Amino acid sequence: MKEVADIKIVIAPDSFKGSISAFEASLAIEKGIKRSFPAAETITVPLADGGEGTMDTLMTATNGVKTAVTVTGPLGNPVEAFYGILGDRKTCVIEMASASGLNLVPEQEQNPLVTTTYGTGELIRHALDKGFRSFILALGGSGTNDGGAGMLQALGMNILDNKRQRIGFGGGELSRVDKISLENFDPRINESDFIIASDVENPLVGRNGASFVFGPQKGATEDIAQILDQSLTHWADKVEEMTSVKLHNMPGAGAAGGIGGAFQAFFPSVTEKGAEVVMNYTKLRERLADADLLITGEGQVDFQTAFGKTPMRAALAAKNMGIPTIIIAGSVGKDIESLYRYGVVSVHSIMTRPMALDEAMRSASKLLEHTSEQVCRTYFMKL
Amino acid sequence: MKEVADIKIVIAPDSFKGSISAFEASLAIEKGIKRSFPAAETITVPLADGGEGTMDTLMTATNGVKTAVTVTGPLGNPVEAFYGILGDRKTCVIEMASASGLNLVPEQEQNPLVTTTYGTGELIRHALDKGFRSFILALGGSGTNDGGAGMLQALGMNILDNKRQRIGFGGGELSRVDKISLENFDPRINESDFIIASDVENPLVGRNGASFVFGPQKGATEDIAQILDQSLTHWADKVEEMTSVKLHNMPGAGAAGGIGGAFQAFFPSVTEKGAEVVMNYTKLRERLADADLLITGEGQVDFQTAFGKTPMRAALAAKNMGIPTIIIAGSVGKDIESLYRYGVVSVHSIMTRPMALDEAMRSASKLLEHTSEQVCRTYFMKL
Repeated sequence: MKEVADIKIVIAPDSFKGSISAFEASLAIEKGIKRSFPAAETITVPLADGGEGTMDTLMTATNGVKTAVTVTGPLGNPVEAFYGILGDRKTCVIEMASASGLNLVPEQEQNPLVTTTYGTGELIRHALDKGFRSFILALGGSGTNDGGAGMLQALGMNILDNKRQRIGFGGGELSRVDKISLENFDPRINESDFIIASDVENPLVGRNGASFVFGPQKGATEDIAQILDQSLTHWADKVEEMTSVKLHNMPGAGAAGGIGGAFQAFFPSVTEKGAEVVMNYTKLRERLADADLLITGEGQVDFQTAFGKTPMRAALAAKNMGIPTIIIAGSVGKDIESLYRYGVVSVHSIMTRPMALDEAMRSASKLLEHTSEQVCRTYFMKL
Repeated sequence: MKEVADIKIVIAPDSFKGSISAFEASLAIEKGIKRSFPAAETITVPLADGGEGTMDTLMTATNGVKTAVTVTGPLGNPVEAFYGILGDRKTCVIEMASASGLNLVPEQEQNPLVTTTYGTGELIRHALDKGFRSFILALGGSGTNDGGAGMLQALGMNILDNKRQRIGFGGGELSRVDKISLENFDPRINESDFIIASDVENPLVGRNGASFVFGPQKGATEDIAQILDQSLTHWADKVEEMTSVKLHNMPGAGAAGGIGGAFQAFFPSVTEKGAEVVMNYTKLRERLADADLLITGEGQVDFQTAFGKTPMRAALAAKNMGIPTIIIAGSVGKDIESLYRYGVVSVHSIMTRPMALDEAMRSASKLLEHTSEQVCRTYFMKL
């Protein structure tokens, strides 16, 4: 048995959605460990999946700073949005949800025929003006289905109808596109590099496309989804005419209401899984060096976790370095055995007794601290 | 690291009250372990605390048999009660609750002024008739406060009023006792030995006595508790007159409505903690030999567990043999750190997500199996 003082534990949870951030979760786990093993070395590496919380996580990890910018919200009204600048002072992190998120649209007004990504383009432009040329775009949480047209307009692209007028905001306007002109498109885009953090592999159009798959959760009825899909198809035709890039069935083009396709067609960009981007920029692998154990977790863990969610990716990174993983979660669902092959030793729930969801969410930090202590005692202690 | 095939785990839970028996709990834990470690040696030793389930646990452990006897219930009506005969075919196990239990009294009729232990005496007499002379009496769950007078009457003792008439049933009658005569008291009692399984150390009378402390949960109002306490005091005076045994302040005399005192005054008996009796007869210590881990548990574990409940006693037995203990419980309460000094490595709840108590109780076996697997993986596995 190793001496406790020589134990090194890396603590790298995702957020417990609706309850505590990844940062708060990592502190709770650390506190639990320290209660029984004050001498153990602990390293907290809060993670994220490329969705909400990604920017904050990367700011925390790299000691970055945030900038507030007033931009055009998804409904056309001004909203205060943020982008982050990593500790390298070179790379901007933009969460699309900050400027064009579903959470910025009151439920009764949710309608992707009208919501725009214009504000996301304004965020990028603001950062370009400040001299930044490296970008991480986190696409999670958008409330739009405009193919990224709003963003492109904000960056100077002329998207015109058959009267040579600029089209308006929203996915519904795309069916009116007659001509796309790059003439005034911001030339600094081509001097930049974009990492697109997105887990979505859906094509732009069709039954598996943005409109039918993600439209409904943004307020589209079946009829509206149909219109949106036709509009995106027309948009893709026009993009193809101009660029020869055929977005229609391109994997990932359907991300975030089709903005994924806009990046693929018009930006120097690579797409990476959100969790991988976060793991790279938080230097999870470097921090795992010589660790005895990785503890990760999130609000809910089940067999779907095996399909690429953050804890599994972290576990896999650890496994490749010979380090076992324990997952601690709010809820533990079915068939978690499928996680074992990713180096997961075991999965534990933070629940200590029968309780309602809202109590569990309110008490998540305390429960997580408690469970982490018990789990670490179980793992490291022999009488 | 030991080879998994060489791991020996002793599984010795108490029942999860209101949900699953100690036997069911031990099978669920075993099943969970075997899912990940089919080659591990597991030994199930279901435990009990001397209360409800004690007889069944000892029957299971020793391959004993049960005998049904119709006796006088606590309200004077006939009830079917049971006693068990251990696998040695010599020792009888009598749960007082079986003949004189609170669970035999409808809630609106609960009144220890009238409830009697007569049926418990009949059970003993029946066993004496069958030739048995070794007894284990489990005192938990009584619905009586008659000082054991009913039991003594059933065994031939003359407890008479000032008209030389036998007094009636119930704690209220004790105030009428004028004379106690051993003339017809069953002589086989003195040829027998009685192990009284009881955790109660309260005296017979006074503020800490049976009537005030346990009377209310058996249906006594404050006024009735007062009467009961005076009646028991009178009874103790009379017992002292005849035997010189002063039960009034004797520790343990207040167990089970004062029947503890009856055993102390009139029976060749020793009193032991319920859990210790069960641990002795289930041979827990022998079965722990060479074990790598003890897993115990019960429905609810908290700091009170440190004050002598079954899991703590089992843990302490294991600790004295150098074997660590893990506790798995339905609910884990506050301040469980106090258990660590008894060799408890950690305490885990079977909850896997927010859920209501009744769902947790219905699913207890499945949840316990799941949690046991995860905990054992955490304890025994290194990547």
